[in-house]
Amino acid sequence: MTIHSLFPDPEHLGLLTDLYELTMAAGYFAHGMADQRVTFELWVRHLPESRNYLVCAGLEQAVHYLQHLHFSSEEIDYLRGHPVFQRVPAAWFKSLADLRFTGDLWAVSEGTVVFGEEPLLRVTGPLMEAQIVETFLITTLTMQTLVASKAARVVSVARGRPIIDFGARRAHGPQAGLLAARAAYIGGCQGTSNSEAGRLLGMSTLGTQAHSWVMAFDDEKEAFRKFGQVFPTATMLIDTYDTIQGVKNALASGAAMQSVRLDSGDLLTLSREVRKILDEAGRTDVKIVASGDLNEYKIRDLLTAGAPIDLFGVGTELVTSRDEPTLSTVYKLVEQETSHGLVGRMKLSSEKKTYPFAKQIYRTIGEDGKFKHDLIARFQKDERGTMNDEKKAATPSDSSFIIQHSSVPGEVPAEPLLTQILQQGQLVRPLPSLEESRQHCLQQLAGLPDELLDLDHHHAYPVRISPELEKATPTK
Amino acid sequence: MTIHSLFPDPEHLGLLTDLYELTMAAGYFAHGMADQRVTFELWVRHLPESRNYLVCAGLEQAVHYLQHLHFSSEEIDYLRGHPVFQRVPAAWFKSLADLRFTGDLWAVSEGTVVFGEEPLLRVTGPLMEAQIVETFLITTLTMQTLVASKAARVVSVARGRPIIDFGARRAHGPQAGLLAARAAYIGGCQGTSNSEAGRLLGMSTLGTQAHSWVMAFDDEKEAFRKFGQVFPTATMLIDTYDTIQGVKNALASGAAMQSVRLDSGDLLTLSREVRKILDEAGRTDVKIVASGDLNEYKIRDLLTAGAPIDLFGVGTELVTSRDEPTLSTVYKLVEQETSHGLVGRMKLSSEKKTYPFAKQIYRTIGEDGKFKHDLIARFQKDERGTMNDEKKAATPSDSSFIIQHSSVPGEVPAEPLLTQILQQGQLVRPLPSLEESRQHCLQQLAGLPDELLDLDHHHAYPVRISPELEKATPTK
Repeated sequence: MTIHSLFPDPEHLGLLTDLYELTMAAGYFAHGMADQRVTFELWVRHLPESRNYLVCAGLEQAVHYLQHLHFSSEEIDYLRGHPVFQRVPAAWFKSLADLRFTGDLWAVSEGTVVFGEEPLLRVTGPLMEAQIVETFLITTLTMQTLVASKAARVVSVARGRPIIDFGARRAHGPQAGLLAARAAYIGGCQGTSNSEAGRLLGMSTLGTQAHSWVMAFDDEKEAFRKFGQVFPTATMLIDTYDTIQGVKNALASGAAMQSVRLDSGDLLTLSREVRKILDEAGRTDVKIVASGDLNEYKIRDLLTAGAPIDLFGVGTELVTSRDEPTLSTVYKLVEQETSHGLVGRMKLSSEKKTYPFAKQIYRTIGEDGKFKHDLIARFQKDERGTMNDEKKAATPSDSSFIIQHSSVPGEVPAEPLLTQILQQGQLVRPLPSLEESRQHCLQQLAGLPDELLDLDHHHAYPVRISPELEKATPTK
Repeated sequence: MTIHSLFPDPEHLGLLTDLYELTMAAGYFAHGMADQRVTFELWVRHLPESRNYLVCAGLEQAVHYLQHLHFSSEEIDYLRGHPVFQRVPAAWFKSLADLRFTGDLWAVSEGTVVFGEEPLLRVTGPLMEAQIVETFLITTLTMQTLVASKAARVVSVARGRPIIDFGARRAHGPQAGLLAARAAYIGGCQGTSNSEAGRLLGMSTLGTQAHSWVMAFDDEKEAFRKFGQVFPTATMLIDTYDTIQGVKNALASGAAMQSVRLDSGDLLTLSREVRKILDEAGRTDVKIVASGDLNEYKIRDLLTAGAPIDLFGVGTELVTSRDEPTLSTVYKLVEQETSHGLVGRMKLSSEKKTYPFAKQIYRTIGEDGKFKHDLIARFQKDERGTMNDEKKAATPSDSSFIIQHSSVPGEVPAEPLLTQILQQGQLVRPLPSLEESRQHCLQQLAGLPDELLDLDHHHAYPVRISPELEKATPTK
């Protein structure tokens, strides 16, 4: 037997998708529709009740996938042998061997704040390609957007104290740990405990000490002393037996520690007592690190109560987005070039209606730098990414609607949020670095209307749908 | 710049761990403790409120990791350059190049039902190795145990109707999708939509049809007809515009479909109406598939109300274990061979007390085949995996306690749940196949006391701690 690691393999990307994407692909091929030019969009249907905004993340991994997508011979053989594909034309399997993503991708930059209904990605290309990539794009954007959004909430209450991702062990598998470390950084965390994320992404990695180190010595003082000998910048974990005795032992050990860590108990009371003991011993330089099932609510309450904690390690709650571990992300066909011209496509299922046509998001920002409202409007093919006078004269109904709104006194002109990333499968410009995405996110969060930072109540940010989209009806 | 896939790499397993595992490893090395023989155990501290039992899964991936763990030169160079390791002896970096896992592993088989406090894994080996593997083991066992446990709950209410994993797009990244498909199968699901899980693991894969197929044609009837031409065993998705008209169109299309799928709306009412329409058309052979944010509660309620649904596709709720997306899994030092002999190690942190010494779980089963109670007792080094008379004569206090309990009339003798998997890093016997683990799980679930299948109330299964463990005190 083979023991599987179940690590996804860059040489076998083709089957990282739902089987129905491949049956549909074969069906389009069989009916001569594989190359029809279509547009799909990916969006979150509605925000979870406890989220007032989302931070978009995961684009880089989506782009990597689109640029590397192919079907290996093992994958094609697997499909050939699958009972469901027995009536599929042999030419389809051959065509898979040559399949590459040749479409266009427009996307919202990582770190950008987005809301329900707003397209994060727009894929335009041959129907077969655009269909196959659905599953991977949804999972990749959803996972990182979840974690970046949770990170932003945590960071927003931390009053500048660093938040470190401690979640490698709580993420949904080793890859989820890497994705979470990256997304948490975009959302404003300052580093991670995940060593491989440090190596791959250049993030700062931080380590403290586990209970096992302390337990591996008969005496806690000896444990601290010996750790300090090797790591002069150590963080000593003081709660293995008794936190107060622990900090006393850390001091008595004579170790050159940089901080102490609390991982259990009443963090408010303990942090105060520990601070007092440290200060009385003249170690005002020693910082206090706290961890242990922390989230944005607990950190807010600790800091509001004046807990002298300098840095927070957040794991489980961050990397699983524990209170909202999923988003209602969808990827839908919105536009199609058919033999009778360009048609908008929409779904009318109960409570799951969609709007047709390729779209753009226009965000209007006040002179105070705060977001005022967004408009989702039909994307204009000649768009260059900014609104200008030529455009104003040339574009129809919904674009003039935008411009009317964006020229209200006290508002700067609305900016489109989707920009082109791939043209015929090729990058049109380098993607931002991780650091740039993180900085972009911090700027975005500064633009959030204050009420959206409320952790306790749901506030809806105004996202308008253009009249042209609202009045659209399906082609039947 | 490099665009990262963030797929974990079998050639770079060493850094898939928290940085503090590596600082501690270096610290043990610096103090001549790296080769001290220790035992760590991994367990779930307590069950979530909404779980009455867990199904253990993920062992195969844990074993793969332990058998392939090594540090590449890139990884070692990364650590050499990391500021925190500047005072670490150069010999440690060299030792990493030769590091392999040489310890013993005992584990509960995949598919076995387990409860809080019960060790799922026990690692015995050199301290440095046993420490480094913590993060990977926790993440791997936790993720699959979460999903297998959720799957078992869903399957337990489905009255024999197949449950299919539809979660590839909702899992926390592409790898999480693969891990979830595997774990869901162990927990009793019958297949997956995840094509790569099908190829890698030999699971049956099932595909239906997405709304995009229907939307890509001007006419719904034409969409169904054309799909049926290529896929005579098709499942037609009938809710894109209007479910009732949808099933009529599917019938009128003349397609040789096998089933229809409902993905939105009131599934009880719609399934009844659709069944009636199908039956009246003489298509009693056509099955009804339902999907759309389903979970164990909704499926129970649908079937209790008599919904004529033949198969359920479950995605989000299953693969994220949405109501409980994490477990309180820990991996703790419990035993250590020191210069002054074998000592038990335990932690006393508030509400996080642990029991010392290597342990075994003994499960007592009634003559009706139902689990009666478990006992966690100290593991006896001479244990061969079964209790026999020799053992009875030879073992001290807590084992005689076990035997007293297991010889109550109407009970069969208690069986130990942890068996040896690796000896000095080598497999002692092949692991069970995925199919065997799934069958084992189904047998285990048949042994659950009925009240543990209650979805609405928490019931605690009796897990006893042996007197020897209860009275143990820390070595200080």
